[in-house]
Amino acid sequence: MSIANTPQPPYYAVIFTSLRNEGDHGYAAMTRHMVQLAAQQPGFLGYESARDELGITVSYWKNLESIAAWKEDALHRIAQDRGRSLWYTQYSLRVCRVERESKFPE
Amino acid sequence: MSIANTPQPPYYAVIFTSLRNEGDHGYAAMTRHMVQLAAQQPGFLGYESARDELGITVSYWKNLESIAAWKEDALHRIAQDRGRSLWYTQYSLRVCRVERESKFPE
Repeated sequence: MSIANTPQPPYYAVIFTSLRNEGDHGYAAMTRHMVQLAAQQPGFLGYESARDELGITVSYWKNLESIAAWKEDALHRIAQDRGRSLWYTQYSLRVCRVERESKFPE
Repeated sequence: MSIANTPQPPYYAVIFTSLRNEGDHGYAAMTRHMVQLAAQQPGFLGYESARDELGITVSYWKNLESIAAWKEDALHRIAQDRGRSLWYTQYSLRVCRVERESKFPE
């Protein structure tokens, strides 16, 4: 996992913050599959993910249209349903417009 | 660590993604101190953090003015300097406008 090499702003970020249930219940395999599938979507710019107590995944997108299309993807909708029924006790999904970025090293 | 209970959008998010050096070098103590200090700043709305290979910390703010004031805080500037000289091999800091949020359970 590395820091996403995103273009000059503006672009969009989806911040997905979650608390998991105990046990895998197919989560790890589905996550790998969703990462591969998301990376093939038009407008996908990169993603970053970390988990300890809390999980945070940030995906980056060219525009709101590309985020909306990924939300409606058929396989992604199955994953979303399983997320609510099997994997997550709580989550928040925030859609954001990235206005500026600073990097180190510059 | 729980999911930040932020208000209705719009508000702002600072996504800080980082790769660490080996060793602590005062990092854990400074992080605890900075979290306490940030929470006292005008306009602070909450924060979320997770680290495995990558570290992701997202702080939420009322507006760009509150983000700018926190950036210039004297103790925070010392922490920023140590981050570049001691703690991080690489980071990205993205300032975003949160446009909508969905939560589970609703």
